[in-house]
Order: sequence, then C-alpha cells, then structure tokens
Amino acid sequence: MGLQFRNPLTKNVDNTGFSNISSAEGGRLVQKDGSSNLRKTGVPFWERFSLYHILIDMPSWKFLATIFSFYAVINVIFAIVYVIIGVENLQGIQVEHANVLSGFSEAFFFSAQTLTTVGYGHIAPVSVSANIVAALESFVGILSFAMVTGLLYGRFSHPRAYMKFSEKALVTPHKGYNSIMIRIATYKNNHLTDVEAQATLAMHINENGKDITKYYRLNLEISKIASLALSWTIVHLINEDSPLYDLSYEDFKNADIELIYFIKGFDEQFSNIVQQRTSYTVEEVEYGAKFTPAFHRSEDGTTTILEIDKIGAYERVDIFQHKTEKV
Amino acid sequence: MGLQFRNPLTKNVDNTGFSNISSAEGGRLVQKDGSSNLRKTGVPFWERFSLYHILIDMPSWKFLATIFSFYAVINVIFAIVYVIIGVENLQGIQVEHANVLSGFSEAFFFSAQTLTTVGYGHIAPVSVSANIVAALESFVGILSFAMVTGLLYGRFSHPRAYMKFSEKALVTPHKGYNSIMIRIATYKNNHLTDVEAQATLAMHINENGKDITKYYRLNLEISKIASLALSWTIVHLINEDSPLYDLSYEDFKNADIELIYFIKGFDEQFSNIVQQRTSYTVEEVEYGAKFTPAFHRSEDGTTTILEIDKIGAYERVDIFQHKTEKV
Amino acid sequence: MGLQFRNPLTKNVDNTGFSNISSAEGGRLVQKDGSSNLRKTGVPFWERFSLYHILIDMPSWKFLATIFSFYAVINVIFAIVYVIIGVENLQGIQVEHANVLSGFSEAFFFSAQTLTTVGYGHIAPVSVSANIVAALESFVGILSFAMVTGLLYGRFSHPRAYMKFSEKALVTPHKGYNSIMIRIATYKNNHLTDVEAQATLAMHINENGKDITKYYRLNLEISKIASLALSWTIVHLINEDSPLYDLSYEDFKNADIELIYFIKGFDEQFSNIVQQRTSYTVEEVEYGAKFTPAFHRSEDGTTTILEIDKIGAYERVDIFQHKTEKV
Amino acid sequence: MGLQFRNPLTKNVDNTGFSNISSAEGGRLVQKDGSSNLRKTGVPFWERFSLYHILIDMPSWKFLATIFSFYAVINVIFAIVYVIIGVENLQGIQVEHANVLSGFSEAFFFSAQTLTTVGYGHIAPVSVSANIVAALESFVGILSFAMVTGLLYGRFSHPRAYMKFSEKALVTPHKGYNSIMIRIATYKNNHLTDVEAQATLAMHINENGKDITKYYRLNLEISKIASLALSWTIVHLINEDSPLYDLSYEDFKNADIELIYFIKGFDEQFSNIVQQRTSYTVEEVEYGAKFTPAFHRSEDGTTTILEIDKIGAYERVDIFQHKTEKV
Repeated sequence: MGLQFRNPLTKNVDNTGFSNISSAEGGRLVQKDGSSNLRKTGVPFWERFSLYHILIDMPSWKFLATIFSFYAVINVIFAIVYVIIGVENLQGIQVEHANVLSGFSEAFFFSAQTLTTVGYGHIAPVSVSANIVAALESFVGILSFAMVTGLLYGRFSHPRAYMKFSEKALVTPHKGYNSIMIRIATYKNNHLTDVEAQATLAMHINENGKDITKYYRLNLEISKIASLALSWTIVHLINEDSPLYDLSYEDFKNADIELIYFIKGFDEQFSNIVQQRTSYTVEEVEYGAKFTPAFHRSEDGTTTILEIDKIGAYERVDIFQHKTEKV
Repeated sequence: MGLQFRNPLTKNVDNTGFSNISSAEGGRLVQKDGSSNLRKTGVPFWERFSLYHILIDMPSWKFLATIFSFYAVINVIFAIVYVIIGVENLQGIQVEHANVLSGFSEAFFFSAQTLTTVGYGHIAPVSVSANIVAALESFVGILSFAMVTGLLYGRFSHPRAYMKFSEKALVTPHKGYNSIMIRIATYKNNHLTDVEAQATLAMHINENGKDITKYYRLNLEISKIASLALSWTIVHLINEDSPLYDLSYEDFKNADIELIYFIKGFDEQFSNIVQQRTSYTVEEVEYGAKFTPAFHRSEDGTTTILEIDKIGAYERVDIFQHKTEKV
Repeated sequence: MGLQFRNPLTKNVDNTGFSNISSAEGGRLVQKDGSSNLRKTGVPFWERFSLYHILIDMPSWKFLATIFSFYAVINVIFAIVYVIIGVENLQGIQVEHANVLSGFSEAFFFSAQTLTTVGYGHIAPVSVSANIVAALESFVGILSFAMVTGLLYGRFSHPRAYMKFSEKALVTPHKGYNSIMIRIATYKNNHLTDVEAQATLAMHINENGKDITKYYRLNLEISKIASLALSWTIVHLINEDSPLYDLSYEDFKNADIELIYFIKGFDEQFSNIVQQRTSYTVEEVEYGAKFTPAFHRSEDGTTTILEIDKIGAYERVDIFQHKTEKV
Repeated sequence: MGLQFRNPLTKNVDNTGFSNISSAEGGRLVQKDGSSNLRKTGVPFWERFSLYHILIDMPSWKFLATIFSFYAVINVIFAIVYVIIGVENLQGIQVEHANVLSGFSEAFFFSAQTLTTVGYGHIAPVSVSANIVAALESFVGILSFAMVTGLLYGRFSHPRAYMKFSEKALVTPHKGYNSIMIRIATYKNNHLTDVEAQATLAMHINENGKDITKYYRLNLEISKIASLALSWTIVHLINEDSPLYDLSYEDFKNADIELIYFIKGFDEQFSNIVQQRTSYTVEEVEYGAKFTPAFHRSEDGTTTILEIDKIGAYERVDIFQHKTEKV
C-alpha cells in the first residue's frame, strides 16, 4: 500500500515518538479514545499496570461493583476464619443445633460489623484467637476504608478533558482550497483556556523500496485559542505547504493515512492542564462535507445555546478538484 | 446597533474562542462572575455537569445543608426498609403496643447508629434479613463518609483566585490620552506571583451589511507584574493604537461593547495557577473618573494597610475630548 | 532619608507589584519569612483569611493542640446538652445520688464515644431526644473526622521549598568588582530542578523633591541552575550596570535599601513548583565578608557532605574601595 | 586521574548546580536511581527528612509493615496504661485469678477495639480514669486513621515517571561518527507527552595543576519528542562539537567521566510533570555495541508489542577508530 510521495516541499518530522518502521507496527497507531495501540511485555503483570489509575478511570458502576465485591470477599474470608476457629468463641452468637451454615452466616455478619467498625457488640470475640482475628480485621477495615477514600477522591479530582470530537474529519472547501476540518467542544460545565491543537499525519510510504511510516505536522489555520467555551473547528488548509496537496481523490482514499489530533488546555475547574488525543483513519474522513452550525441564540435572547449532539453534524458540499486541474 | 469602524490601524483577533456571528449570540458574552453566558444541550442531564465541581464550588452553608439532607434521607430510606422487614428483627428495640411511628423512629435511630458506624449495640440486628440490610448500610456509611472526606478536601484545596475587581471600569485621563482603567486586589492572606492580565474588546460591528462580532486585544501599559500583594490598576491607553481611539463619547456610549478581562497568576498558598475572568458592559463603564488611593501607611508606621472595600472607589475628573479636537 | 541617585545608566522597573509611593508604605516591604508586610482591611474578618491555609501552615504541635481543643470543646458542648435533656435518657449511666458533676462526666464520656463513633453501647440513648442528639453528634463526628483527614493530607502534601538562606547578604570582592552574595541550600532530602533566582533592589529616592520608592532588577551572574542539590551562591556584581555601582560605603550604609530575593524551582518530591522569598535590609548586609565552604568530601571518600548550619558562615575580607578611587 | 582536555571548541557549563571542586566531592555525583550522592549535616535529624515523603516512597510491603507495627505498638502502650490503671476499671473483662498476662491481653484487645473505633462494648470503661484514657485513645485512633488515609492517597497519587533506562550506555557508530546512546521506555500503562531529555557530562580535569570537575552539555540528535509511547533511543553524536570528540579509546576508558541523563515529561495519568534522572559511569558504558529492536508487530497484526525487558538489549558492532585516523 506504500504510496510514492511527490510534493518535494513537505518535510517529515521525526520527533513524534512513534516508530517509522512500518513492518513493526500493527493496526492504527492511536485508538479512537486517544490511547496508543500498544501492548507491553517483559514486565511482571502487576508492574505493567497502575492499579490506582485503572480504578480511578473505570466507569462509576464498575468501580462500585469492584468495591462491593471486595467488601463481600473480605467478609467471606474472615467468616471462614471465624468458623475454623469455632463460632463458640463469638459471645452472643445464635447457632441452632450446631448448624454450620447458620454459624457461617452469623460469623459473616460479625465480620461485617468488625470490618466497618460498626461493632454493635451483641456478638463479641471472647477467646484470644477470636480477639486476634477481630483486631486484625478491624485494622484491615481501617486500611480498606482509607484506600476507598483515596480512590474516591482520586476519581473526583482526576483532571479530565470532558471533550467531544466530531465523529468524522471532513474535507471541506475553504478559502480557495480544500481543507481538513474537525470540530470539538467541551460537554460539561467546564471551561478551558490557552487551548492548543496539534495535528499530525501518519502515512505509509514506499521509499527506496522499503515500507516506512512517515509523520508530517499539519499546519492549522488557528492552532491556539484563548478560551474554549463554544465549539472550535480545527482547520488544516490543503494548500501548497500541505503534505496532502498533490494527492488526488484516489490517492487520498487509497493511502493508509491516519490523522492524529492532540488538544491541550488549562481547565479552570481542575486548575490543571488537561489533554485529549484522537485519530481519524481514512474510513473516518468524509470527503466533500461541511459542518452545520452547532450553536444559536436562545429564544429569549439572553444567552447562547450550544448543541453538543450536533458537534459532528455536517452536510454535503462540492469540493475543489484542483488535483485534476493541475495534472 | 452595528457600528461602522473607522480606525484602519486596528486589527481584530480571531483566536478568542468566542463566536463572531452576532445573530447566534444572546446577551453578554462573559458574566460578571467570569463564567460564559452559555447553555449546553444535547447531552443527558447528568453528563452536562460535574457533580463534584458543583459540590466543591457551592457556598459552605449550602454544602453542609446538602450533606445533612443526604444523611437524613439515607436514614429515612433504611428506616423504612427496617420497618418493612419488621422491627422485631432488631433486638432491644422498645416498641410500645406495636406503634408504627414509634417503630419507625427507633428504626431511624438504629439506622443512624449503623450508617455512622457508631453501633452502640443496645439495638442490634438478629435475623438474617436485618443483618444483611445492616451490613449493607454500614457499607453505604463507609462509602458516604469516604465521599464526604473527598468533597471536603476538594473544597479546601481547590485553587481559587480570591480576587476582587473594581465594580466599574473607568475612563480616566492618563499620559495625555484617555485610558480605560480597572483595579484589582486579592482580599485574603494570599499572594500571587507572575500575574498576567489580558483585556479583550468585543464589539458588534456592521461589516458589508452584516452584523458581526469582532474582538480586539487591548494593549495594557503593564500586562505582567512580578507579584500581586497590593492593588493593581490595569491601564489601557486609548492612543493611536487603540481600537477605541477614534470613537466619540456618543459612539462609545452607543456601542454594544464588552470589555473582557482575564487575570492569571501563580498562587503561593495553593502552589497552583489561579485564574479569574470578568467583563464590563457599557453600563459598567464610568466615563470621566479616576480611582482614589486604596492603601496607606499604618499609624505606627511599621506596615502598609490595604483597604479592600475601596478597591472600586473613584472620584470625578475631566477627560480629554480629543475626538472633538480631531474632527 | 531620600538619596539622590546618580548613575544615569540604571533603569528602574515598574512591574514589581510593590507601590512607589514612599509615604504610603510602612516598615520593610518583605518580611524575613518572605511574606508581604501588609494588612488588609475592609473585608469581614472571616473573609480576610483562608482558615484552611492557616491550619496547614501552623507548626505541628499547634495544629495538634488546636484539633485536640476542638475535640474537647465539642464534647463539653454535647455533654451539656445531654445534661440539659437529662442523663436519665442515657441507658446504663451510673449517676450516684443525682450528682450533677458525675452526670456531666458520664455524659462527656458518652459524648466522646459517640463523636469518635467508638460507641461501646454500655451507655446508650433511649429517649427520642437523646437519640436525636446522638444521631446529630455522630454526624458531626463523621464530618469533623473528614475535615481532620483533609487537613492532615493538606499539611502533608502542601508543597514547601524547605530552603535555607544565609542570615546575611555579603558584600564580597569578586572578578575585580565588589558583589552582593547570598547563599541558599535545601535542608531536607528534597531536590529542586530548574531553579531560578531574582533579585530586586528597593530604594527610597528623592526625585524632584518627592520621596518615592524605586525598584531595580539586580543582574545575577547565574540566575538559573539546572538542579539545586548542593548550596548555591547567588551573586550580583556591582559593576557599571548595577544601580549600586556609584554608591560609596556611606551612601550604602545610609540608604534605606531593601534587597528582595525570590527563588523558584520544581520540587521533585512534591512534583510541583515551590517558591521562597526573603529580603535583606541594610542591617542584614555584611560589608566586606565572604562565605566559607559549606561542603566537603566524606571521610570514606564515597559521598559529599553538605553542612546546612554553615550556609551563612563567612569570614572577613577586604573589599574594593573603587568609589574612592573614582572620585 | 585528571585528564588534559584538548578540544578548544568545547565550552563547559557552570549552571548545573553541581560543584566544580573535585577535592570536595566523593564518589559518583548521581546515583543509579537518580538521587544525588550527598549527605546533609547541621540540621536536627527530624528536620533533615520529610517523613511523609519517606513513607510514600517506600515499597508497599514496607509501608504496610510500618503501619501494622505502629498499630501494634500503640495498642501495647495503651494496654500497659489500662493495666497500670487497673483492668477492674474495664467492665466485662474476664480476668482469671488476677492473672497479669491475661489482664494485659484483655486490655490489649479492648485497646484495639477502641483505637479502631469498633467498640463492641462487651468490654467498656467504667471509672473516670479508664474513660479518660479510652476517650484519648479513640481520638488517637481517629487521627491515626486520618494520617493513614492521607499517606495512602499520597502513595497513590504521587506522580512517578515509571521509566526504565537501559542498564548500559552504548558507544555505537551512527551517521559517520561514533555516538553515545541510551534507550528508555515507560513500563506501565502510562503515556508521557512533550518529553525532553538532557545529557550532561561530568569530567575530572587537570587545569593549571588543579583537579577540578567540569560539566559539558551533550547535544542530542533529538532532545524533545511529542509523545513517549514506544521506546526512545537518546543519541549524542561524538562529532566535532562534542567534548568527547578528540578522546581516544584509552582516554575514554581512563577518564573518570560520568554521563548524567535527565528526562522530563507530562504524564497524562497523573496530569503532572514527571522527571527521572540517572547516570552512567565509565564502567556502565559499553564500547562498540548497538541496541537490538525492542518492539514488533503482534501476530494478529492489530497492535504493536513493546518488550520492556529488552530495553537494554544490545549486540556487538565495530566502531569508528577515527581518533587513530586523525592522529
């Protein structure tokens, strides 16, 4: 699929941090959610991940389910220990006819009362062994609680970009040239300042018979805005300076290109820099389309309304065929 | 209201992040408190806000009321569950003559003892069903407590600018020109360093018959100071380089302008960058006034006193009428 | 005290954020600990301070004493409430002969058990009123605990520079000129990178008969170092470019000058920027002295030893009298 | 060991923050883990360290052991206090025949129940003295718990680079010159952006008969990459601009050099800048070797696999002997 690249003006960049050996890469470089398409080996499983970050990045319902499972499992483990020690060491327990199941359930509830430090006391440890296990369990409870507190605060306070990208990148006529446009907006009550955008083109090119991946910085009409409150259409003009300039419609469609966008800004709510990355493969580029407006004046005229669900809305337009004209 | 703009030197900026389609905008662009005058639609209600940020930004009394209501509601819910299960499953409860209300109130108090993990134990769950609910409730208690801890720390540590702006922007004679001045100060025991100010003028202009909004950067006499301990008067000279230069008093008053100020600095206490934004509409500009001093030497001569409530204090002055002279 | 300033080369700076009206200032501008010598009025007492920052900046023993007092006071208040309600509403209380003091002390201990959520239960609330107060108190306990957790974490994690400055600024001969030197080091196991220093001279000058304060940036021989592990001697050469160049020994001693130093760097442990400021008045400048070495090779030759207590150590030297030579 | 330095083009830098007095330094400047080889004296032991940072930087098992020991020790101390007061002040305690050991063990368990605020209540303080101690202990428990919460969150959220360096620096032929290469990668699911590398050469040189340490910035082929997802080979070409250019193989091996690398980037997960430093002494430089590939396409072709354990893998190559050619 290696494409012979013709425009002599274009200069590729070698500091993207991506590899330029096509044969060593698999699939798209950047996933739709912005993460790298990469697997790491050669480190033990537990060192390969930051458990904390997995727990603070997972959806809320998954996080709650994980915490609840943890609570249940710890209680089961300690209930088993109390049963092994003998539930008769727990004063006040009501075991009918030495029923093991009933003993386990009472031990489980005592465990829950100890782990959460609620400690009603109608069941209480009396032997040394039961006391040691209970002292240990309440210590585990304290530690687990401290961990949950940290995880919850981590989830709350972890800076996130809350940014929505248009599903497609559009090829739109603009200022006498074709251009590549994407549109973004923040979808929460957040506000970014000093927002920068960077667009990189990854292209599989045949150079001297070898398939290599080259990277090109795409110039943006405006690459930095003071504040992102409304939507922002990020525009790359396919003019004489663009590496895409002399590509025909067919070239464009056949090229195994990937457009990588990186947005960075200061979030006022988090008081921190937030970042978001995404990429568009050829299938995610719409040839001959333009974005339709996403905001309008409110009916009472006192405010502006931004429709987040229309951030990717577009309509068909004719584009320039200047490739044909030139050839 | 579209104003024909005459000074050919002035160049508008297009990277403010605001829209330039007057017909799509409603009301002022930036609220007095610095937030954007904007409503977002097209996202589900819960995704439109960051609940965490709402809770850490609300006033203390509102926050405490919210937390307390939450505490009461959770207890009511669990009390109802205990009543449904049957309060006879709670050992030690004192229900006189199967009184439902009395049963509910006892269940409510047992719930509070479980939720806060105080667990006196004079009331204690004895059946499997009551035990399961109690184990669940103490788990909910632990989680809620963890959340409150995170929210409180979030409230404490969230960087805030603690900055006071003068209520009015003044038009004051200065260095042979008129100028626009606002004055700011930090009102807490905080200290900002490397403080930058940016002033932007939004102006509704009639260009080629269309009403559009144009934005102009206003040059500031001093736009960055090393440290903001005292007050700072931010000065824009209405000289030949200013987009406001050739506007008459009437133009000025009739123009639907908006002055947007943005301040940014490093707060030493929060060890973080803090930002504050505000805007002045025409009604909030005082034509022919100057700020009166806001600080003076203390009586014992050992310190300087800054009067925060005088940050917006001004007196009348005559301004230059050079527009008239020129025409 | 106004000094007539002679060197025409020196240019003062007006973006220090300090005032230039001598008559409005009292005492030194910057305190020895780096805070501004400033009092703010015109805001209500509680808005004038950030309680959180006061609590996280106070010494550990003071903080512990504050927290403990808070614990005692809350318990006393609730004990009084229980006594008012009637201690007979607390089941299990041992009041001998309706002794009020004994009743208070039992109520106090019950309060402590409720506030800390330890809730042994040998004393327990039985009436509706006592139950309401207890439910409230355990809620207060949870909230207070959450606050203490936040405050402690705030104290732990608050970025601090841990920087020690030499007690005196020295006037030392260096490279054919006199120079002003101070020396700094970090005294904990911390490590700063990209450390910048800024020196500003504040000088009370008589200009056109008015006493004003002027500020001068003092050029530093090295103003940025890659890493601050050892000590750093910050050097300002009093050469032709220095505002201090043409001042005689007597001028220097008589001038009501203040040398303000500001250090800023990235702390690797806190992963944050830390800052420290200090100032030297004329009394804190040592005329004719140089720093003695503060580090040496360890006896076993495997490491370097930095003596923090010698950071301000100096010995006498003769300085250039080039003022005299010139006149 | 002082080496006579010949290349007149090379200019040393004096803002590294390291000392240039060889005789005052001991051992390597930077440890393999990036910390300075430095000991500080002259400050009291407790001021010399930040206990918080020691606790959040230690390995997990050590931290857990420390916390657990703390829990055990506090309980032992309070158990002793209860025994001294007299265990008969603890209602419900089961002491057989005034057995001291049994009394201590019961007091220990009561202490654990109080410290963790589990407070079953089958043992409860009845006298004023026991009540005071118990109220104090539950307060200590609350504080300790708050501290553990803060420490755990500190451990979780403390930004770390999670970066692996090749064990050796290689001298590899590259673009017609020899070069010094090291290779790095992040080994967790983290992603760095705007990553910068800095290489500094420390060299013990004999200048005018004195042994001094000089520092040279080593130019890097690429010193900043947009994103570090894969591995990054950091290359210094030993060309005419390099301070190492005219050194022979023997010079190189005999010189007491140290290569100090400093990497800095923005970590997306921590939303913070992370840094890592390391150094290579002569023994850690491999003369005539090149890195073997560390990543390849996955078998199913959909992703790229990075082998972290091969980050330092190299094979032998011949290097240029241009020193010989030149001489």
